[in-house]
Amino acid sequence: MIAMKKSEKKSAKRLSTKPQEAKAWGGRFSQKTDPEVEAFTASIPFDFRLLPYDIAGSLAHARMLARQGILTKTEGRLIEKGLKEIRTKWEQGKLHYTPADEDVHMLVEKRLRKKIGTAGGKLHTARSRNDQVALDLRLFLRDQVRALSRELKTLQENLLATAQKDGGAVLPGYTHLQRAQPVLLAHHLLAYLEMFCRDQVRLSEAWRRINRLPLGSAALAGTTFPIDRRGVAEDLGFDGLAANSMDAVSDRDFVLDCLSAGSILMMHFSRLAEDLILWSSSEFDFIAIDDAFCTGSSIMPQKKNPDVAELVRGKTGRVYGHLMGVLTLMKGLPMTYNRDLQEDKEAVFDALDTIRQSTRLLARMMPRIRFKADRMKEATTAGYLLATDLADYLTTKGLDFRTAHRVVGELVARAIENGKELEALPLSFLREIHPSFGPDVSRWLNLEASLARRNSPGGTAPGRVRKALHAMEKKICRTDYPF
Amino acid sequence: MIAMKKSEKKSAKRLSTKPQEAKAWGGRFSQKTDPEVEAFTASIPFDFRLLPYDIAGSLAHARMLARQGILTKTEGRLIEKGLKEIRTKWEQGKLHYTPADEDVHMLVEKRLRKKIGTAGGKLHTARSRNDQVALDLRLFLRDQVRALSRELKTLQENLLATAQKDGGAVLPGYTHLQRAQPVLLAHHLLAYLEMFCRDQVRLSEAWRRINRLPLGSAALAGTTFPIDRRGVAEDLGFDGLAANSMDAVSDRDFVLDCLSAGSILMMHFSRLAEDLILWSSSEFDFIAIDDAFCTGSSIMPQKKNPDVAELVRGKTGRVYGHLMGVLTLMKGLPMTYNRDLQEDKEAVFDALDTIRQSTRLLARMMPRIRFKADRMKEATTAGYLLATDLADYLTTKGLDFRTAHRVVGELVARAIENGKELEALPLSFLREIHPSFGPDVSRWLNLEASLARRNSPGGTAPGRVRKALHAMEKKICRTDYPF
Amino acid sequence: MIAMKKSEKKSAKRLSTKPQEAKAWGGRFSQKTDPEVEAFTASIPFDFRLLPYDIAGSLAHARMLARQGILTKTEGRLIEKGLKEIRTKWEQGKLHYTPADEDVHMLVEKRLRKKIGTAGGKLHTARSRNDQVALDLRLFLRDQVRALSRELKTLQENLLATAQKDGGAVLPGYTHLQRAQPVLLAHHLLAYLEMFCRDQVRLSEAWRRINRLPLGSAALAGTTFPIDRRGVAEDLGFDGLAANSMDAVSDRDFVLDCLSAGSILMMHFSRLAEDLILWSSSEFDFIAIDDAFCTGSSIMPQKKNPDVAELVRGKTGRVYGHLMGVLTLMKGLPMTYNRDLQEDKEAVFDALDTIRQSTRLLARMMPRIRFKADRMKEATTAGYLLATDLADYLTTKGLDFRTAHRVVGELVARAIENGKELEALPLSFLREIHPSFGPDVSRWLNLEASLARRNSPGGTAPGRVRKALHAMEKKICRTDYPF
Amino acid sequence: MIAMKKSEKKSAKRLSTKPQEAKAWGGRFSQKTDPEVEAFTASIPFDFRLLPYDIAGSLAHARMLARQGILTKTEGRLIEKGLKEIRTKWEQGKLHYTPADEDVHMLVEKRLRKKIGTAGGKLHTARSRNDQVALDLRLFLRDQVRALSRELKTLQENLLATAQKDGGAVLPGYTHLQRAQPVLLAHHLLAYLEMFCRDQVRLSEAWRRINRLPLGSAALAGTTFPIDRRGVAEDLGFDGLAANSMDAVSDRDFVLDCLSAGSILMMHFSRLAEDLILWSSSEFDFIAIDDAFCTGSSIMPQKKNPDVAELVRGKTGRVYGHLMGVLTLMKGLPMTYNRDLQEDKEAVFDALDTIRQSTRLLARMMPRIRFKADRMKEATTAGYLLATDLADYLTTKGLDFRTAHRVVGELVARAIENGKELEALPLSFLREIHPSFGPDVSRWLNLEASLARRNSPGGTAPGRVRKALHAMEKKICRTDYPF
Repeated sequence: MIAMKKSEKKSAKRLSTKPQEAKAWGGRFSQKTDPEVEAFTASIPFDFRLLPYDIAGSLAHARMLARQGILTKTEGRLIEKGLKEIRTKWEQGKLHYTPADEDVHMLVEKRLRKKIGTAGGKLHTARSRNDQVALDLRLFLRDQVRALSRELKTLQENLLATAQKDGGAVLPGYTHLQRAQPVLLAHHLLAYLEMFCRDQVRLSEAWRRINRLPLGSAALAGTTFPIDRRGVAEDLGFDGLAANSMDAVSDRDFVLDCLSAGSILMMHFSRLAEDLILWSSSEFDFIAIDDAFCTGSSIMPQKKNPDVAELVRGKTGRVYGHLMGVLTLMKGLPMTYNRDLQEDKEAVFDALDTIRQSTRLLARMMPRIRFKADRMKEATTAGYLLATDLADYLTTKGLDFRTAHRVVGELVARAIENGKELEALPLSFLREIHPSFGPDVSRWLNLEASLARRNSPGGTAPGRVRKALHAMEKKICRTDYPF
Repeated sequence: MIAMKKSEKKSAKRLSTKPQEAKAWGGRFSQKTDPEVEAFTASIPFDFRLLPYDIAGSLAHARMLARQGILTKTEGRLIEKGLKEIRTKWEQGKLHYTPADEDVHMLVEKRLRKKIGTAGGKLHTARSRNDQVALDLRLFLRDQVRALSRELKTLQENLLATAQKDGGAVLPGYTHLQRAQPVLLAHHLLAYLEMFCRDQVRLSEAWRRINRLPLGSAALAGTTFPIDRRGVAEDLGFDGLAANSMDAVSDRDFVLDCLSAGSILMMHFSRLAEDLILWSSSEFDFIAIDDAFCTGSSIMPQKKNPDVAELVRGKTGRVYGHLMGVLTLMKGLPMTYNRDLQEDKEAVFDALDTIRQSTRLLARMMPRIRFKADRMKEATTAGYLLATDLADYLTTKGLDFRTAHRVVGELVARAIENGKELEALPLSFLREIHPSFGPDVSRWLNLEASLARRNSPGGTAPGRVRKALHAMEKKICRTDYPF
Repeated sequence: MIAMKKSEKKSAKRLSTKPQEAKAWGGRFSQKTDPEVEAFTASIPFDFRLLPYDIAGSLAHARMLARQGILTKTEGRLIEKGLKEIRTKWEQGKLHYTPADEDVHMLVEKRLRKKIGTAGGKLHTARSRNDQVALDLRLFLRDQVRALSRELKTLQENLLATAQKDGGAVLPGYTHLQRAQPVLLAHHLLAYLEMFCRDQVRLSEAWRRINRLPLGSAALAGTTFPIDRRGVAEDLGFDGLAANSMDAVSDRDFVLDCLSAGSILMMHFSRLAEDLILWSSSEFDFIAIDDAFCTGSSIMPQKKNPDVAELVRGKTGRVYGHLMGVLTLMKGLPMTYNRDLQEDKEAVFDALDTIRQSTRLLARMMPRIRFKADRMKEATTAGYLLATDLADYLTTKGLDFRTAHRVVGELVARAIENGKELEALPLSFLREIHPSFGPDVSRWLNLEASLARRNSPGGTAPGRVRKALHAMEKKICRTDYPF
Repeated sequence: MIAMKKSEKKSAKRLSTKPQEAKAWGGRFSQKTDPEVEAFTASIPFDFRLLPYDIAGSLAHARMLARQGILTKTEGRLIEKGLKEIRTKWEQGKLHYTPADEDVHMLVEKRLRKKIGTAGGKLHTARSRNDQVALDLRLFLRDQVRALSRELKTLQENLLATAQKDGGAVLPGYTHLQRAQPVLLAHHLLAYLEMFCRDQVRLSEAWRRINRLPLGSAALAGTTFPIDRRGVAEDLGFDGLAANSMDAVSDRDFVLDCLSAGSILMMHFSRLAEDLILWSSSEFDFIAIDDAFCTGSSIMPQKKNPDVAELVRGKTGRVYGHLMGVLTLMKGLPMTYNRDLQEDKEAVFDALDTIRQSTRLLARMMPRIRFKADRMKEATTAGYLLATDLADYLTTKGLDFRTAHRVVGELVARAIENGKELEALPLSFLREIHPSFGPDVSRWLNLEASLARRNSPGGTAPGRVRKALHAMEKKICRTDYPF
């Protein structure tokens, strides 16, 4: 993937102030574009970032034109050299733009013509900005999704390492934020690992839909030149061609695929963040996040806040918003390309930056969390977490589950009245509620035994969880998608 | 798939007014549920629709419990018989509910216990409503997505038939709603067919994610009973098991997968609808929709409105809204099941009803549209649609594309001044603008030739489009997913 | 407000199966509407609920027509009598519909014509369904917003009563879910009361925008009949006229105003719900919600879940979704009425039902919550909540706040190392950290003193809070809007 | 309002690379913040823009502290001088930041302490970043909403001028994008002016809710210092105080008010844009947008695209997205400040930039649109736009409206069969359909007469529209809100 941030930033600095040059499309126009319109419609402030992808696409296009004899070999070589020089300048942060450059495509073409003269004007043969921008965006997102997938894999690995290291701790599993049944920490963390596996699949599906070549669709109807689309697709590593030119220039499904997959991913992150925030509270006190991942208060000297988790949770809304924004902009657009489509880029750029940053931060933070096994265990001793076990016990004595459930319910009510936990109730007390209770009940009112008994596939029994960790290890390794 | 609408409606009618029965979970509680709370929390008014799926799941669960010896054979048989009778009553519209029944699971269990006594209380052994509702919803959505996929296939077939029958018409292709280049109607319609092919893939991906068995996860941590999850999965036709119990009871990704895929599908529909609405206007006048698919005005006697297309476009917002609603409700939920999750159902039910109805209506309407080839062709004669061809022509004379573009741009400006179309300009006029124009230019200023020349893969040349129609026919036939 | 639920439900039952009657707009049409189209486009299944508003509007319209001599007095009387009979039937649940009735307007007109013959056909003079439905929806929402405002007032009163009764309890105030500074429970609850006051203002603003008469705009351009719009506005209690007919028939701002205000209201509810859920957890254990407002688990006998709060939190997404849905449907609609607009109703109906139900449930639940003042107070004794006071103390000794903050920060770090709370540190220990600490520091390390010192306007000092409660009482009483 | 763009940009350029300085809150922390965490949590890259507001707030705070004797007069003067110098540097683009500066508040404080020493550390007495950032954002939005309101007023004025100049043109009014009835162009444009008047009211309501002082709430519970909040409120021009400190530091309703109002405004813009795009098409051809407001195609030399309108329409999604993003981030946040709230800023900044830019562009573009009155009029001659008049005519002959509607409906059907417009049908033909037609019918089949007859309040009759234009002129002048 192409490094870009540095040059982008540098470039934004020195905006050229040259008088407006003639537009490439200006032949039919009798007046200059209004400067505010120019600023309003210019995409160069954000699509400048696409430059290396634009050039990669142009190189492949030029090579093909030369192969097909649409350009002479000399023209082809000239263009190739020129484009590479422009890319180098961009990489060095020495390429600058003004709003009058409109967009990255025009910027590159203008620089090229300045460099190599007329031959530069031939590069745009047999293509349009409509198919060109679709190509650039697909090349960019291919890289982005691939990078995100790798970063997510790192998060999975770190989370797995945590589960392997600290996962033996026992804590209450919650439903409705009420203590429900004891679970292994590893089991809890594996739930998130499962989510991330589904996210990986979603990313790979999006990737596959991205990876189709739109170039050659030209403005909307194809081109009159004898081009070789398959050759370009091969050159650029695409799986195949976008099959219909009108669809190809107005299709943004692949952007929505990224945003949908990203929204679900961020939703998963927001849930993990919520758990971490709860666990960091004095009330839960299950974890301590490293100082390096927290910040303090400007007024309250004692505060140490789980800011990273909070921001990740908050940024979920941001990504949802971008999804909603692009869905809205696409709604009701007639065929084919409409300028509204330009609005797709900032949304998907910011969404991916946000998602990738959140992914990396969570990956870095996981190993810096200290899990307080003692506090977790303590929390399992209050709240009647073994009530279900007791009901199950009664079914082994022949009660149907509904009756067993009611009996234990009443028992819990009585225990609450008496301010006691189930383990603390004498057998005689139990037998008053129901005669089926026997001395063997103590074997069921035991944390370790309770865990061990949940030995169904997918359950929290230590043996099961051990196997699940191994299986997850393999699953993560296999995360090795078409890219 | 199980027909359900009729019985649902019937049942909603006669709400029983019996005094509140004891809750299955009431053992621990000392007070009755407040009746407004009961109404507020009850899901039975909407999940009643899930009854056949609930029973299918319970049948498989009971069979497994019997196989594993957790139930006796007799109990198993009794339960099976009882459940089937309940299902029959539901199918006949004779099963009724009150809010006190809470949800479809409790309704079925209560009826079963009434029918077969204690054995009915054993059905809930080794499961919880948390995994049960996840199962029901997956079974339901499996059917829904499969049905939608078939209905979409019908729409594809009808649209393809239209393209094959009427697709030879030539109309302007538009960008920015400005006439751009001439295209074949078939080419335009194929763009939508491409979109629908991607939708089919998305549906199949969602389907695959739906098709994992959550049952056996119990409340959140697995169960202490020696269950056989794989057996149940096989019995119910699932591809595999949800691997982690905590994830399984709180995972709603598969709902979001349906809503994401559905939102993109509706977006495609909204674009098709927009085209149909534009084409129905007096200004475009490219199509006439059959009277049977239009409605009139209560005040303006002459009106005939493309209501179906408008409603489909409007309903896009509805489906987006449901996606946003479920994304929002999932945001920041801690592990595991939280009652908020109950809100997933009405959203996905209404979304799928909306999408399926829209799909069916569009499928029915397509063959009832008359395409006015004359009007379409007429529209291609104004608006300088062959300007790109003229620029391409000049490149064959050695001009670079940029120069050629500028020359033709000026030519168009001059033509507008003179109120003439390009075809009507004498050669002398052209040569004044640029000497490269020769008498062979007339071969380029020709509609049919222009179409024929756009012969690149994906282009609108008649030969290409013919092949694309064949390829699409095969693609649609292959739409024959895991289901 | 008009009771409607009962009759609605009854009516939905017996769908007439009569053959399709001629449409009111059918003159120009040569074919019957396709039955699926009829079902797809019919709004009667949901706008049937608007019937009393439709009739109220028609009565006012008919009276005006008679006053203006457009109807004879006899015709006016006949129509009035007929409409009232239809309303009575509806109230009794004896009015039924079929999809062929299209919408509530056509249903009423058809019944009227059946009842009183030709004169019934004159009611629609000088109006269109376009302005009629805008009127009905405004009348309906006027009632709904008024009712919601009253229900919200009840919630405010109940919350205030709680604050007055239990508000003396001291609990940790939180930022970042970390204990921050001690606050009075009343102060915490007053924060929500402030939010609800803003909600009331928002509702009243929406109400004012709703309360403009659209009738008389006819289809889109006004009418040729000599109508008296002002008279109708007065008759129906509107503040004024929608000033432009084209705007009036396509304006749905007032729906969006309701949905925006409602979304923000639900967001507030979701925050209150979150606090209640946290406080119900074993970890916080600050409150006990009455059994009547909780439900249990089908498998875990000990569970008691704060379902109402969870569902309210979850339903937030639902209302957001409706807002997004209507915003999307309005986006890019050209002038004037488009059939898409029909989609506004189900969204706003469901949103208001949801919001009102949530409001009522929270209002009922507040008095049924037991606040555990002991547990709350206990929570203030750990977590260094008085650290800010200590920094403030040091500034009274001449340190600048930044230095004071750093000193106390280090003190806290040392206290954590030593496993002690600030109050437990001997003065010598404090003086080691900084010599400015004196024996008077103990007066600052005191919970009551800390509260009392936060005596700035808006602060949590008991005296301030007492005044704030009084002020809030008056504010709530004044909630007595234009309606 | 404070000019800021220039200095912002300049500053972003030269990022200092100094080693991390100690955090103001670092006393309790034993480790440095991780640099990626610093970058992730830093808000300085976007809240740097708030600097002049931060300083305005700090100046008022310092003045108050000095008045109250919490600072000495000298300290007060020193701080004031220092802050003003920092502001000057910012205005000159000479103030720079690094991510280690965290946020604009810390940046200012650090620079101040560097400048004036210890006294700088006293500025933060009696406040927290929690109330400070709420203040800054309110000051910023107060300016923004005021500026937007003025820009919207300019758009209203320009649109009104257009309506006054060109509004006499007659064009078809549309429903369902079908020609419905003739209207004056001024009448059509007045519909948008009505929308914008509602937008102005919404902005002023938002403004009023913004204009409450949160400062003095400190971290969450008020402060122990004897501050004077009312004095600060007066100094900064606030209408009053945020009444509850816990609410004040976590309230973002005012942000949502801006985003809701802005979303509805953009929805209106998207509808205007849609009309302009349709009217620019060859098919409608009702307007010509000045070259200066259009752009061309890189491949199709004849293209002239209404880009501004398209982008405005597309940007609607962007603003909706921000609304949804902030609603989502607020959902379910417990009391009080949570770091998630930091995410509000970029959303509301970008939304307001987008809305204001769109407003200005539309305002500039309106006077540069040429309305083609001839083309508009031509469009009214086909499509049976006078059919309603004909039905109204028949009611003057004693037919009830329903019968009249049916008669004219049939007439239209026959006219279509005969390929004729209504005006072209001989009286004998009319009388065949219904004997009530008389020779006076020709007076009704006349465009001007039809317009003139729609003389009800709000209708399109020229006299009415003239009055409406005057009324609108006054309404716009009165747009002169609390600010």
